[in-house]
Amino acid sequence: MTTEDPTVSNGARALLRTLTDAGVTVCFTNPGTSEMHFVAALDAEPSMRAVLTLFEGVATGAADGYARMADRPAATLLHLGCGLGNGLANLHNARKARVPVLNIVGDHATTHARYDTPLQSDIATVARNVSAWIRTASSPAQLCDDALDALDAALGPPGQVATLILPADVAWGEGAQPRARKPKPSPSRVTESFIDAAAQALRRGRRTALLLGGRALRAPALLDAARIAQQTGARLFAEVFPTRLQRGAGLPAVERLAYLAEFATLQLAEFDDLILVDARPPVSFFAYPGKPSELIAPGCTMHTLAAPEQDVDDALRRLARCVDAETLQPALQGAWRPPRPRGRLSAEKVCKAVGHLLPDDAIVVDEAQTSGVMLPHYTAGAPQHDLLALTGGAIGQGLPLAVGAAIACPQRPVLALVGDGAAMYTLQALWTMAREQLHVIAVVFDNRAYAILNVELQRVGARGAGSRARAQFELTAPPLDFVQLARGMGVPAERATTGEAFTAALEHALATPGPHLIDAVVPNAFSGLRLRLLPHLLSSLNGLPRPLAQAVKRRVAP
Amino acid sequence: MTTEDPTVSNGARALLRTLTDAGVTVCFTNPGTSEMHFVAALDAEPSMRAVLTLFEGVATGAADGYARMADRPAATLLHLGCGLGNGLANLHNARKARVPVLNIVGDHATTHARYDTPLQSDIATVARNVSAWIRTASSPAQLCDDALDALDAALGPPGQVATLILPADVAWGEGAQPRARKPKPSPSRVTESFIDAAAQALRRGRRTALLLGGRALRAPALLDAARIAQQTGARLFAEVFPTRLQRGAGLPAVERLAYLAEFATLQLAEFDDLILVDARPPVSFFAYPGKPSELIAPGCTMHTLAAPEQDVDDALRRLARCVDAETLQPALQGAWRPPRPRGRLSAEKVCKAVGHLLPDDAIVVDEAQTSGVMLPHYTAGAPQHDLLALTGGAIGQGLPLAVGAAIACPQRPVLALVGDGAAMYTLQALWTMAREQLHVIAVVFDNRAYAILNVELQRVGARGAGSRARAQFELTAPPLDFVQLARGMGVPAERATTGEAFTAALEHALATPGPHLIDAVVPNAFSGLRLRLLPHLLSSLNGLPRPLAQAVKRRVAP
Repeated sequence: MTTEDPTVSNGARALLRTLTDAGVTVCFTNPGTSEMHFVAALDAEPSMRAVLTLFEGVATGAADGYARMADRPAATLLHLGCGLGNGLANLHNARKARVPVLNIVGDHATTHARYDTPLQSDIATVARNVSAWIRTASSPAQLCDDALDALDAALGPPGQVATLILPADVAWGEGAQPRARKPKPSPSRVTESFIDAAAQALRRGRRTALLLGGRALRAPALLDAARIAQQTGARLFAEVFPTRLQRGAGLPAVERLAYLAEFATLQLAEFDDLILVDARPPVSFFAYPGKPSELIAPGCTMHTLAAPEQDVDDALRRLARCVDAETLQPALQGAWRPPRPRGRLSAEKVCKAVGHLLPDDAIVVDEAQTSGVMLPHYTAGAPQHDLLALTGGAIGQGLPLAVGAAIACPQRPVLALVGDGAAMYTLQALWTMAREQLHVIAVVFDNRAYAILNVELQRVGARGAGSRARAQFELTAPPLDFVQLARGMGVPAERATTGEAFTAALEHALATPGPHLIDAVVPNAFSGLRLRLLPHLLSSLNGLPRPLAQAVKRRVAP
Repeated sequence: MTTEDPTVSNGARALLRTLTDAGVTVCFTNPGTSEMHFVAALDAEPSMRAVLTLFEGVATGAADGYARMADRPAATLLHLGCGLGNGLANLHNARKARVPVLNIVGDHATTHARYDTPLQSDIATVARNVSAWIRTASSPAQLCDDALDALDAALGPPGQVATLILPADVAWGEGAQPRARKPKPSPSRVTESFIDAAAQALRRGRRTALLLGGRALRAPALLDAARIAQQTGARLFAEVFPTRLQRGAGLPAVERLAYLAEFATLQLAEFDDLILVDARPPVSFFAYPGKPSELIAPGCTMHTLAAPEQDVDDALRRLARCVDAETLQPALQGAWRPPRPRGRLSAEKVCKAVGHLLPDDAIVVDEAQTSGVMLPHYTAGAPQHDLLALTGGAIGQGLPLAVGAAIACPQRPVLALVGDGAAMYTLQALWTMAREQLHVIAVVFDNRAYAILNVELQRVGARGAGSRARAQFELTAPPLDFVQLARGMGVPAERATTGEAFTAALEHALATPGPHLIDAVVPNAFSGLRLRLLPHLLSSLNGLPRPLAQAVKRRVAP
């Protein structure tokens, strides 16, 4: 019906109708003059929710968080190349997460581009790195087909970033008609030979692990993976930074690969075969002098069961059947919570309090960096929750991701655990949380440092670093007052310096609708740490299970 | 001497030595793991001042502000493609300003790039839009030559953005030697025929204007331009958004072209000849349905006296000689200050207070948008000052620019006049002001709106805009509390709601070292404004002189 609506005529209106008809009903915005017709069309299209942000990195990170939870893309509305540029870091994270995002980037009218005015830039080039699909709309008549092509590209599978550049005169031009999206074929099935090869590897009796990423970290795939592990003795690992990991009591426990290559190498050391399921071959995040980038043991054979563009659920179901695990009851994580933390606050105690209180069906956004090493451990037995991680390594993702997740799932509490350094990149997200009254609890690990860089300075073997170098990691002078920063954007906030105070603040925030920020003042666990670094990290890193931690300790203790 | 220093050996150390020897002694940083060797080398090179920022857009905007005032480039230190992406908007502004900036962008070790790890991206493509020069350093032995090539490219003339991509293994690799920069030839002289053509146009007796940009807005060029105007009756205009305009009592008064094309067209309507001096042909910022992009009158002849890459000072001197104006005393702006404003605060009263108190030799950063329309008028007769404007239209420039200007000129007070919306893009600049104890006074025009977009919505002729559209411009729910935001980053702050309070706060801030923020709560002059827009703006826009304002009023009043 809507496709012939005679009231819809200019490009912007027809575009909005096309998007909402196709299920894109949220748009994270930071508009400018070239987007004014899109903005004006919002009143004609109330089924599009336009969520204003004060910085484009918030809009793009929110679109990522929304899509991770809603399993459909949001749109962004960005102002020319510079607006897109401001959103680039979180689009990078979305790309690495294989999450669908549909960017609408306004541009000058086509007749105006040749004047090289102040805001003129080559938007397509700005978009190149992050976008699997880029097109500049050329006419109102063609615009809605362009939008549906963009949406198809975004949806993949796998999810991708698609960027539709919308010149102002295409938005304001008449003659546009909404278009209806045609259903797309489902993701391709993995061919039988790959299932057989994986099954053979599992049956061979060698030490085998499955590395799960993407869709494989969510039910039903995750349950089938656990059945396979149960039946064959294979170990399950998750990618270091999962897009969305379903976990908690009643779900299979999956050990995440460690961020530090030194430990990930040890996690993988014993395996002769590694089966990739919607995951990339494991490599270290950065390179370090004299150390290999690849993390698997020499001689380990890698197999790919399913690639991101394939039907991962189906592949794991068939593999489970193939190894006679189809009807097994997989090992599931038992319910368990740490006690309330007491005394002077530390990052570990924050993680403990989160594990103690995490409500059912929460969404946990983890950008806690060094402060979060104990988080997987203390929340392992908490009620079922989704964990969203920093997929692309571009910090400043946590708070925006929480905005989008909360808008996708208004009934679920969202905890955003963020380092103080990370929080400052996209702090403007707090304002959108307040404006939209989202139930997001932002916990800032306030250790007044880029603590991870103290660690990395050691790891890269940089010599000669003294006080001038270390000053580059210090957020002490002046300290950031996150309580004032949050209140300045309309978000209620408290500071906690003890386990008791933090737990009380978190209880209050969980029980009270709307956004909250808790400024968790914690010591920097890694300041001054030098050669003693590795042993110190051992027992906690990425929640390594105790037996592995012991094994690691034996190997690396001085 | 330094070129053979045997203690300098790894790439990072040799690079720092090369840069400081060549006069690049400030680096605005936001480093990550891939930059750790550069950071470690800071202790060996104390003549490099590393200024930490909490967001890369602050670093790049600060580098722009520094170069505008120091007339030499600063370096930035950015973390891979995502760090560069975060800095892109202000690099765009620097590019449009023709300001030299030298980006050092860390990258993965060359051996690591093939693994497509989370932070891997195509940095050169991210850099493409803003950079006139891009190179990836390939070896420690070659690195310092690369850096000098980058510096030469940045210096131009005209100034440009140069991006040197520094893989981690080139930074940590041994065998690098510092290099000394060879002096470059001065900018090319304008050929005589262009001087003659301009002189002929001026002598022809037709109505002629000079449009000044870049270097032409600074002494000695500005004085020669004023002599030419004095002698020939030509009118002087400045580009809408000058990189750096020297003005105030005792300098020639130059009328800036209006941002709104409707008015700029009227400013230029009477001229038969327009002579461009380090300026681009005047065009409207955006396109509007049914309106021309070009601002000159039909039939107006444009001439170019000097292009940005040429010796502008020399060209204006020769033109002055050619029209026998060389020894004239040009008309200079007299000293004049508005009185102290009283009563309920408005944007106009803020501008009045600035004009009343502006100290000698101040630097004024103008990102005030709609709130700043009266600024040129009220500061015209204030003591001499430099005005830095939003050259590329990418908002979020004001506070970072002030950081850089203050570091370039530690003895000069810096006033950053910023809209509330603009301030929020790069608010993290406040923390660097506090950390470095810069004498920057940030004045936030707190009208709780993207006020300019209310104007633009009218100008683009968008129909059907209602409450949902207008909500995209409203920063009211919740209001931003800039006092808390500033204090949260260690910057003393006050709120002013009356002329008296604002003036007292500004007096205090000017007299007290270190940074300050004044939250100037002002009404949004343009809310609800519709068809009455144009006449309302007339008397004030961009400080149009009264006769022109009258002429405009006659033409556009309904």
